[in-house]
Amino acid sequence: MTELERALAAVPEVDAAAAASARAALDAKAKPRGSLGRLEDLACRVAAIRGSGRPERLSPVVVVCAADHGIADEGVSAYPQEVTGQMLGAFAAGDAAISVLARQAGARLVVADLGVREPVDHPAVLDRRIRAGTANAARGPAMTRAEAERAITAGLGLAHDLAGPYDLAGPYDLAGPYDLVAPHDVVAPHDVVAPHDVVAPHDVVAPHDLVAPRDVVGPGAIVALGEMGIANTTAASAVAASLLELDPAAVCGRGTGVDDAGLERKVAAVRRALVVNDPDPRDPLGVLAAVGGLEIAALAGVVLGCAAQRTPVLVDGFITAAAALVATRLQPRAAGALIAAHRSPEPGHTAILDALGLEPLLDLGLRLGEGSGAALALPLVSASLAILSEMATFDAAGVSDSGA
Amino acid sequence: MTELERALAAVPEVDAAAAASARAALDAKAKPRGSLGRLEDLACRVAAIRGSGRPERLSPVVVVCAADHGIADEGVSAYPQEVTGQMLGAFAAGDAAISVLARQAGARLVVADLGVREPVDHPAVLDRRIRAGTANAARGPAMTRAEAERAITAGLGLAHDLAGPYDLAGPYDLAGPYDLVAPHDVVAPHDVVAPHDVVAPHDVVAPHDLVAPRDVVGPGAIVALGEMGIANTTAASAVAASLLELDPAAVCGRGTGVDDAGLERKVAAVRRALVVNDPDPRDPLGVLAAVGGLEIAALAGVVLGCAAQRTPVLVDGFITAAAALVATRLQPRAAGALIAAHRSPEPGHTAILDALGLEPLLDLGLRLGEGSGAALALPLVSASLAILSEMATFDAAGVSDSGA
Repeated sequence: MTELERALAAVPEVDAAAAASARAALDAKAKPRGSLGRLEDLACRVAAIRGSGRPERLSPVVVVCAADHGIADEGVSAYPQEVTGQMLGAFAAGDAAISVLARQAGARLVVADLGVREPVDHPAVLDRRIRAGTANAARGPAMTRAEAERAITAGLGLAHDLAGPYDLAGPYDLAGPYDLVAPHDVVAPHDVVAPHDVVAPHDVVAPHDLVAPRDVVGPGAIVALGEMGIANTTAASAVAASLLELDPAAVCGRGTGVDDAGLERKVAAVRRALVVNDPDPRDPLGVLAAVGGLEIAALAGVVLGCAAQRTPVLVDGFITAAAALVATRLQPRAAGALIAAHRSPEPGHTAILDALGLEPLLDLGLRLGEGSGAALALPLVSASLAILSEMATFDAAGVSDSGA
Repeated sequence: MTELERALAAVPEVDAAAAASARAALDAKAKPRGSLGRLEDLACRVAAIRGSGRPERLSPVVVVCAADHGIADEGVSAYPQEVTGQMLGAFAAGDAAISVLARQAGARLVVADLGVREPVDHPAVLDRRIRAGTANAARGPAMTRAEAERAITAGLGLAHDLAGPYDLAGPYDLAGPYDLVAPHDVVAPHDVVAPHDVVAPHDVVAPHDLVAPRDVVGPGAIVALGEMGIANTTAASAVAASLLELDPAAVCGRGTGVDDAGLERKVAAVRRALVVNDPDPRDPLGVLAAVGGLEIAALAGVVLGCAAQRTPVLVDGFITAAAALVATRLQPRAAGALIAAHRSPEPGHTAILDALGLEPLLDLGLRLGEGSGAALALPLVSASLAILSEMATFDAAGVSDSGA
């Protein structure tokens, strides 16, 4: 059994009884029933994910997975490919948008390199490199199936480390005291690599137990997904078009700001990638390998790992949504762990949200990615849980109820 | 010149040059131009209000004004009138919804009684009582014109104290060290009362200078509006229907949860109040006195006082929006200081937002009031200012710009 198979089997159903218990607790609070609207739904959703009607406060973590994309050669982005690595440096330096927004949200920021073309030499960037960027999917498969699975497995490892019960004393500690960096962990090329242990060649190492859900009432994390990768809206468009069986023109948008000609090139590149590789929509791993990206695969792994550990996942924009879609195609139960943070202007994003039955919390016209929308939604989740745990009931507050 | 007249004259135009300076600074940041969407617009709006292209971080304050409404006698609310005072006790005790959400937002919570039927004996509730609730507007004027003006003036005083440069060290200090409580300040019945000083009879006391805008680059506050008052969506509906010249049926909603019959009674009560009092839509003070509420008048004063001091105001739901509408009818320039926090399900709320040209930040189906939506939006304002002040430029980050 591979680590991925073990994770897929470990993903639990969400706990409807816990959600009902949270709803009953909210109904007893000194306020008209349901008057906090979607904030109440949010608390119930977290309760269902955590498997507890009274979930404790969650430590927020933003995880940014980064990689480069060969399909950038098709002229689909307004930015040159070296920007991916440059931005990783800015994330690590603490002055990129996601650095600022994670800090604002009191969230730990974790940045992982899944395969930027030029490696970034910074101790705060976790080395989870599978290969130096994907190949150009418009001319052949972006990566091998084994590479896609290794990238997912790297994400599983990140989820395990992020959602674990380590001490989160500092509000912002990119290069924190936890040991996530194992620079020699991508060494067994034909194997599913356990991402944070010395690899035993020809053996699938499962250094941590994903099968038994953890103590769900103990301290936990909420994981906000982020990404960086020039041209990755093109890869996400190809994944979405394939899995949702939509025309590329219906999913492609302007990404972070391509012009009309660029958008045409993007649609053409996605169309070509789907023709050249002809991925099978019923084979999500095959779709990822053919037209996806290393960071998209890793984020799918983060989703699956979090779901297996009953850790809520805040989906950011289009790219992270494509990763979440892949995760749910590998294991439909993973959908229960998702919370949609915001609605991006990318048409493919709305298509995925609809397919997953998710209604985003924010609609602020964000099109940056990096996890910016997910970070902005973190305070809403905290607020919903604070209402559940700190607000008085009608009885306790000595307030007359209407009985409504 | 009354204190209200002085405040109206002191409200400045927003500073378009400051907004343009903030926009230029955002355009130089290491991200595609405009890619943080409405978060960038928000930073520019705060810059315009503060009169600085680089506004400093703002200390968040939630101010809840409370009062009772004689129109409750028409059976327009699902809750008995004593709930207003009971809820003030819960606010002060720290376990009502707004207590929890203010704490979450790191905001100071200030609660003022403008005229709850039974006074609340709690040191953390500021005594700004004008009268023990309004009269039933369906049978005559809710209050006198002088009372409406005194309630507005009480709000001006709150704004002065809230937005002042006092120390905000603690994250949540409802009964903080600042002296806002002057229990003997509603004593000169036929006069405009200066709300935080001993009143000199027959003289308009203006203990603080609202005319000259303060040092706008120094520390400042952002004031989130909140309210409490059984039946106050009915009063707000009457104010909105009058000022916007709309049919009562087009503005009345279910408030915090009235049933079909209650909604019918509500529309009828508003219709009767407008017929009985026949207020002139061009006379906002007259509308307030005829069909408004004491807390609505005070909140209009808070808006005007904040606008005069270049302090951004986060408008919560329907009732606070009605107060903001009154403020802008008294002084159209006050509209520049407003930021709409959320869209409530009340039809009148959307009508007011449209009239004021405001697009809310959140749409979460909140219908509680208390300032809950405004408190939830506070982190977005903080995040927008953090992006402006903390994020690196393309140059500083060593990132290649697209030139787009």
